Amino acid sequence: MAELPEFPTSLGTSEGTTITLLGQDLAADLMGEVTFGELAYWLITLQRPTPQQARLFEAVLLGLADHGYTPTAIAARLTYLSAPDSIQGALAAGLLGGGSRFLGVTEDTGRFLAEVLDGLDELPGDDAAWDVVAEAAVRRQREAGRFVPGLGHPVHKEGDPRTPRLIQIAHEEGLYGPHLALFEAVGRVHPGVLGKTLPLNGAGVSGAALADLGIPQELLRGTVLLARCAGLLGHIAEEIRRPVANDVYMTVDRNAVYVAPED
Amino acid sequence: MAELPEFPTSLGTSEGTTITLLGQDLAADLMGEVTFGELAYWLITLQRPTPQQARLFEAVLLGLADHGYTPTAIAARLTYLSAPDSIQGALAAGLLGGGSRFLGVTEDTGRFLAEVLDGLDELPGDDAAWDVVAEAAVRRQREAGRFVPGLGHPVHKEGDPRTPRLIQIAHEEGLYGPHLALFEAVGRVHPGVLGKTLPLNGAGVSGAALADLGIPQELLRGTVLLARCAGLLGHIAEEIRRPVANDVYMTVDRNAVYVAPED
Amino acid sequence: MAELPEFPTSLGTSEGTTITLLGQDLAADLMGEVTFGELAYWLITLQRPTPQQARLFEAVLLGLADHGYTPTAIAARLTYLSAPDSIQGALAAGLLGGGSRFLGVTEDTGRFLAEVLDGLDELPGDDAAWDVVAEAAVRRQREAGRFVPGLGHPVHKEGDPRTPRLIQIAHEEGLYGPHLALFEAVGRVHPGVLGKTLPLNGAGVSGAALADLGIPQELLRGTVLLARCAGLLGHIAEEIRRPVANDVYMTVDRNAVYVAPED
Amino acid sequence: MAELPEFPTSLGTSEGTTITLLGQDLAADLMGEVTFGELAYWLITLQRPTPQQARLFEAVLLGLADHGYTPTAIAARLTYLSAPDSIQGALAAGLLGGGSRFLGVTEDTGRFLAEVLDGLDELPGDDAAWDVVAEAAVRRQREAGRFVPGLGHPVHKEGDPRTPRLIQIAHEEGLYGPHLALFEAVGRVHPGVLGKTLPLNGAGVSGAALADLGIPQELLRGTVLLARCAGLLGHIAEEIRRPVANDVYMTVDRNAVYVAPED
Repeated sequence: MAELPEFPTSLGTSEGTTITLLGQDLAADLMGEVTFGELAYWLITLQRPTPQQARLFEAVLLGLADHGYTPTAIAARLTYLSAPDSIQGALAAGLLGGGSRFLGVTEDTGRFLAEVLDGLDELPGDDAAWDVVAEAAVRRQREAGRFVPGLGHPVHKEGDPRTPRLIQIAHEEGLYGPHLALFEAVGRVHPGVLGKTLPLNGAGVSGAALADLGIPQELLRGTVLLARCAGLLGHIAEEIRRPVANDVYMTVDRNAVYVAPED
Repeated sequence: MAELPEFPTSLGTSEGTTITLLGQDLAADLMGEVTFGELAYWLITLQRPTPQQARLFEAVLLGLADHGYTPTAIAARLTYLSAPDSIQGALAAGLLGGGSRFLGVTEDTGRFLAEVLDGLDELPGDDAAWDVVAEAAVRRQREAGRFVPGLGHPVHKEGDPRTPRLIQIAHEEGLYGPHLALFEAVGRVHPGVLGKTLPLNGAGVSGAALADLGIPQELLRGTVLLARCAGLLGHIAEEIRRPVANDVYMTVDRNAVYVAPED
Repeated sequence: MAELPEFPTSLGTSEGTTITLLGQDLAADLMGEVTFGELAYWLITLQRPTPQQARLFEAVLLGLADHGYTPTAIAARLTYLSAPDSIQGALAAGLLGGGSRFLGVTEDTGRFLAEVLDGLDELPGDDAAWDVVAEAAVRRQREAGRFVPGLGHPVHKEGDPRTPRLIQIAHEEGLYGPHLALFEAVGRVHPGVLGKTLPLNGAGVSGAALADLGIPQELLRGTVLLARCAGLLGHIAEEIRRPVANDVYMTVDRNAVYVAPED
Repeated sequence: MAELPEFPTSLGTSEGTTITLLGQDLAADLMGEVTFGELAYWLITLQRPTPQQARLFEAVLLGLADHGYTPTAIAARLTYLSAPDSIQGALAAGLLGGGSRFLGVTEDTGRFLAEVLDGLDELPGDDAAWDVVAEAAVRRQREAGRFVPGLGHPVHKEGDPRTPRLIQIAHEEGLYGPHLALFEAVGRVHPGVLGKTLPLNGAGVSGAALADLGIPQELLRGTVLLARCAGLLGHIAEEIRRPVANDVYMTVDRNAVYVAPED
């Protein structure tokens, strides 16, 4: 028999009449003392957030929680319609849409900004210096035929209201860091390179803010999924109160048109 | 063509430069002003929580977020091992364990208490009167061969520390309602009916507290899933930093024993 | 350290240059010799199917594989739209709709029939005797306020074409057993008890046929899920060739109507 | 109101007393006449398979269905343990591990081979000519720092038994095409380029065979998922008969070791 490995963890442990979570006494030190958003930050980073970090982190979660009838919200509702006995399935189905196309922008932006910052010997000292860095980065993306993540929005063409708000909160809390600075510089310089002016979108600024908050790149999408989890619960709750999923289904089914396979 | 239905919602809507969520201006009135837990409560109930409700609700979420190497946490880690490119799949796999056996106690307890309360003409006025109600309810469960949900715990045989803590917070915030009162009465009277003394567990008291907070029965399990979502992200983050899933896999695979189908 | 348990299995094992599955040499004895449907039956029951059992089992799978734009197919397509990099997520989202409402009829019917048969001392000898058993069973359901599973269909009000076909195949293969006999008797007698004539639906007859084939009750829904897996792959393949999910999404989103939370 | 789009499909449609699937009469022409594997091929490609194609396709599915206690099988069993009321959740959790690391080789190999073939003006006429093509392709991969997909196996270091078997069946059925030819050439030439001899693994040869069968690249992983669906059902069936998931859970939980977050 191979020797049995140990399984280390810094999260939850229980014994007798105590439960420890992140090295804290769950009942005495966390419950009633820490918000759920603070705990989530702590679980992801292993660092207890300051009140300033908590405010910015929770603001990001709020901005990403729900956007009405997204494909993921509709998928969750349709799954609830089919399997109302299994709310976990409806929630999971909604989260499974958290892939590259709609929810991936936050991660893509965070990674893009971090990569540019990694290539710098020292951080720019003023906006003009940031603009130089940003312009080179946008140019490299365009030359490689890649999008600049975090730019553009199908609805908020004139500006995504979450972007200035998160930047404002970051300033208020002393958490405006290099990722946000570079992201703003991208916003200033991209029209000159790309020949069109696009808004800095909320998903992108969220990636910048989370990166400045120290959320690891691999967990940026996970953080969006946590935010979305609350929104999906809202949709499931609404589906219970005032169902629409059957109307969605019937709308599609009644307007189905058969096309021969060879066509 | 059948007429196209409308799809009503009270959650998120967007247009131009504004985003509305729950009838509020997302950027101006929610981000930076409301915690993520408050938003979740609001999304589920369509009621903005008072600070008192928010504190109790978030305390419940904290108590349910993580319990170390649960089957769901291990499943999420194994899924991340197999598909690290798809963090949403790992999170979904973990949530899919949110069924009857481990995460269902909160819902079961909430439903049981609500059913007993529904049968009362008026609420009992003191502990003795609650005990009469509770004893009859426990007796009916036993006679029907059903468990009393919320009693007993494999580890915390002498008492689950979350239980007195949530009751304390409920008292502090003026939110100690009939579900918690009935649950405590069940704790007092069940030894006389069942012939053994079991602790009131944390999952059960959470169901009672959430019911007193006005969370609909159909969303009790959903609320647990939101809490668990943060814990699972913690496990995935830890799996990235210090992986154990491959050790879990190899431990099982190396100790596999073939048994002929007919045996 | 607690002693490490062994993990028994009768399924796949590998060593050196051989792979064993169900006690067979995978490469030499299964690949190219056994159909995928036969293997699935074998994996579920640990019994190698006869050619007769294989034909009936595969016919059931075919009958349940796809029904066009079901809620599960739409959910899979919407998930593929959002996360095209993760086909496993789209497939999983579709399967998660395999719950009580749409896919549960097969299991419900199988369980209902088995329960009635379990209560018999001996099997009825002719149709008239089956009718007596069936009538009593239907009457008990009605008196208990429960539906008789397997009756009725929203589209095939005049008869579901899968029902006579599966019964015919079962007769051809010598596999017409007590579950199918009882199900047909339910079809004959229910109008007299319920006051209306409903077709025996395909999901129900599938449950009866699978039960006669020896599929355990706990795996009836799992068998439907396997069938549906092929259908969902068909939808995902079609979504890749000729996408509709974005149209579904836009149809819902554009016809969304905001309703104030308090309304 | 925007005009309602039509939703085209070539899969299932129903009306009155008929069900059509892929333009066929489901009950009369498919059930009892076509195997489940044949239907799956048809759904994915919109082409009815010849008996030769069906045999090779089903052989591939058999080779990929199960490999004992894989991470995905363990995840499915743990999920069943937690939520036995929701078999669809256990199956979905298992499939969600169908990502890049374990199940991705089939797709990676198919894409790699197709890309090399796309770059050829005409197909090589004999083994020596194939070897030239293969050697250049392997060299390019090595120079780009990329793995050659389909090479190597942790257990079958001396040879994966599925590889010669699938090649044999392809020859028997007249379906040995350019993807398989190139894959075999990679097997012959890679030692000279990489400096070590690795087996052609079963996942890789499956990708080559499926590509020769005309399965689109985007559906290669989906085909593996269908195969795995049967294997996962086998694990869930076994978990019901002789459970091990609780032992897996207890093994991990009992050997958990708390590590302070800062360590």
